[in-house]
Amino acid sequence: MPGSTLPSPKGTRDFYPIEMARRRWIEDKWRKTSVRHGFEEIDGPTFEHVEVFTIKSGEGIVSEIFGAFSGKDETQLENLKQGHAPFALRPEFTPTLARMFAARAKQLPQPTKWFWQGPCFRAERPQRGRLREFLQWNCDILGMGGPDQPKERATADAEAIAVCVDLLASCGLKPSDITVQINDRHIVAGMLAECGAAGREMQALMLLDKRGKIPEAEIGPMFAAMGVDLARFDAMAAGLRAPRVSDSPRFADLGAALASLGVEDWCAVNPYIARGLAYYTGTVFEVIVDGERAVAGGGRYDNLIEVFGGPPTPAVGFGMGDVVLSLVLQDKGLMPTDAQIAKDLGLRPDAFVISNGTPESDAAVAPLLARLRGRGLHARRSYKATKNIGKLLKDASDAGARFAIIIEGAGEVTLKNLDDNTQDRGATDAMLARITP
Amino acid sequence: MPGSTLPSPKGTRDFYPIEMARRRWIEDKWRKTSVRHGFEEIDGPTFEHVEVFTIKSGEGIVSEIFGAFSGKDETQLENLKQGHAPFALRPEFTPTLARMFAARAKQLPQPTKWFWQGPCFRAERPQRGRLREFLQWNCDILGMGGPDQPKERATADAEAIAVCVDLLASCGLKPSDITVQINDRHIVAGMLAECGAAGREMQALMLLDKRGKIPEAEIGPMFAAMGVDLARFDAMAAGLRAPRVSDSPRFADLGAALASLGVEDWCAVNPYIARGLAYYTGTVFEVIVDGERAVAGGGRYDNLIEVFGGPPTPAVGFGMGDVVLSLVLQDKGLMPTDAQIAKDLGLRPDAFVISNGTPESDAAVAPLLARLRGRGLHARRSYKATKNIGKLLKDASDAGARFAIIIEGAGEVTLKNLDDNTQDRGATDAMLARITP
Repeated sequence: MPGSTLPSPKGTRDFYPIEMARRRWIEDKWRKTSVRHGFEEIDGPTFEHVEVFTIKSGEGIVSEIFGAFSGKDETQLENLKQGHAPFALRPEFTPTLARMFAARAKQLPQPTKWFWQGPCFRAERPQRGRLREFLQWNCDILGMGGPDQPKERATADAEAIAVCVDLLASCGLKPSDITVQINDRHIVAGMLAECGAAGREMQALMLLDKRGKIPEAEIGPMFAAMGVDLARFDAMAAGLRAPRVSDSPRFADLGAALASLGVEDWCAVNPYIARGLAYYTGTVFEVIVDGERAVAGGGRYDNLIEVFGGPPTPAVGFGMGDVVLSLVLQDKGLMPTDAQIAKDLGLRPDAFVISNGTPESDAAVAPLLARLRGRGLHARRSYKATKNIGKLLKDASDAGARFAIIIEGAGEVTLKNLDDNTQDRGATDAMLARITP
Repeated sequence: MPGSTLPSPKGTRDFYPIEMARRRWIEDKWRKTSVRHGFEEIDGPTFEHVEVFTIKSGEGIVSEIFGAFSGKDETQLENLKQGHAPFALRPEFTPTLARMFAARAKQLPQPTKWFWQGPCFRAERPQRGRLREFLQWNCDILGMGGPDQPKERATADAEAIAVCVDLLASCGLKPSDITVQINDRHIVAGMLAECGAAGREMQALMLLDKRGKIPEAEIGPMFAAMGVDLARFDAMAAGLRAPRVSDSPRFADLGAALASLGVEDWCAVNPYIARGLAYYTGTVFEVIVDGERAVAGGGRYDNLIEVFGGPPTPAVGFGMGDVVLSLVLQDKGLMPTDAQIAKDLGLRPDAFVISNGTPESDAAVAPLLARLRGRGLHARRSYKATKNIGKLLKDASDAGARFAIIIEGAGEVTLKNLDDNTQDRGATDAMLARITP
């Protein structure tokens, strides 16, 4: 369709420079927080064999998969006609991480602490806070805390929660804004079994995850149809709650580990947190903002590495998306100004080169730019035809430059500090020496 | 397939921490070089409506597209049975950039200087230097140098080439290692027309691009079949060559612009460079290493913004992949050591916390980690059961930590500088104050 404007695919984003800088600001926080806590970065393919995601992630994810295929491969096209794509765009990163860990389990350190950030894809209906392509940050701790090491397991869970909390704190959020709502699938599955779900604990957990999303009048009969006594479950759940995690006897180890990392104030036990992914085995948590929106979620997945052919490996991790986090920071006025972001990310021009209008000076602009850049400085110029120095100085200022350099003639410039509005004129070498990165 | 190890898709990569750090080192160079030259970062969706790529990129790209579709959408599945996917994973970024520029052309500055880095996907046969998912860096200058402004056009072309050369120079490459081989499609199309290809210039250009890739004995008859007098073209081409770009009369403006940016030494005119993409309109260039491998390529695409519904807009840009660049740097011994990369990227731990083995000291490890991280420091610990301080100090050293902190008792630590092997014991506050980020 030449001549017509093509739209971007529904639920995806175009990042122009301002939006991109805001995104990089968040990604930079993700990265620095991960590194501070001793996590090392990994990445995998954007698409995987579809089985990587269908093995163990559960129906919720599988129904939202984007299929992918190579147009060159005849056998792939044949399968497509049956509706089967060989590849899927990753809806989440954990299965890739499990595949990568399983492939090298014997050589990797114990524990292995990995972080990841990148795009994920879900073919769900786009709405506020939900897109079809979004960015996610994951932190995972693998190989620490076996079945007979409850304290080590609690330490790993607490470290995963602590890095998540540190990110939120470093964005300016407070414990009054957010709560890490913690639960344990193993404990809740036991309670559900006692209330009539024995043998169908996973189904009951998945239904529990829908509570609050589906009207109570509908969900009650669904539990009843499974033979679950919901009133009894609610009574048992009330007994699990406690003002502090460490006050809930079944969460005592985790509470102590959270306290020693200084993040217990951010946490609470919530017996109704189930998480939609099928692979969680024990601790699960959701980071809830203003008692409502989930900005992150995670949990323990002690069987997943084996599913991918690795040895039995305890594992815990979480994911945080950029979309809800950005909305929360904007709503609370915590996103810095674009000028501050440019400063934080090192995007301010160090120098803006201006000709004084003579042909000799015009010809000296490009060589001076090259010289400044060769010294590692971020140097810009105006491309306008104007010779009005006032206008060009305004361009320098609009670009956020630290210095304007006006080329006055052979070997002489005026150096103008645009932050304090001072200026000086002198030999080029001496003036340039004043601009340090 | 539970229990079996799943492979990653053919032609894709798993980045474990060491490979990831090497990749981030290259991406960091791409980013910093772009910013130094005044380019601003953008990004678009990983997949686009397939038409975005089929409009104007040419057959080479279209035959290598990965199709993508949402499993939720019935009409998409119906089309799939005909072999048509609604979306494509981007094989290159330029069409997305053109779509984005066209959508906001009126509000964007003239010129607009954008850079991008991210994954691209091509369903070609994987081989050394070619993968199905790879990273690419693009720099583009849009809206500068109209049809009657040859000097401004040359300046834009030269700026695009200069940022590419600066990246290579900042990696330690020299003009003796690489050449930016420059050509002009408009000039060569004219020559081809004179040699018998009038009306079929684009076909002849695409065939020229295959020269050197297909045996000369096969390509000769293909030109002959088009009615092109190849011997005559070769004679005309010889006349276009010159030791320096500015010595070739038809490239005089570009030569002068390259010289003023200090990069003419890196460049040469090569009348056989055609580039495979259909949308190039004038200047085209390839960065060739050791006279053989192409590490980057680009050119002028003055009609593409209009194709995407925008106003007529002169544009020039290039793309560089990470795969060939990495191979070249490795082959030439220019990739830094992993320790140097960790230092360059700020990945070295600032502090490694060690208990002296008493229960009180053990309990103080986590709170001290939290305190150090709260100060913005990268702090780690050992998770081993050992109480052997010598072994733990070795762990600290293996992790590349700057300092080890041994908790000696209430409010007292030993601070060991692992770079100069000095140590001191004293009050925790005083010792920690010596660790600056």
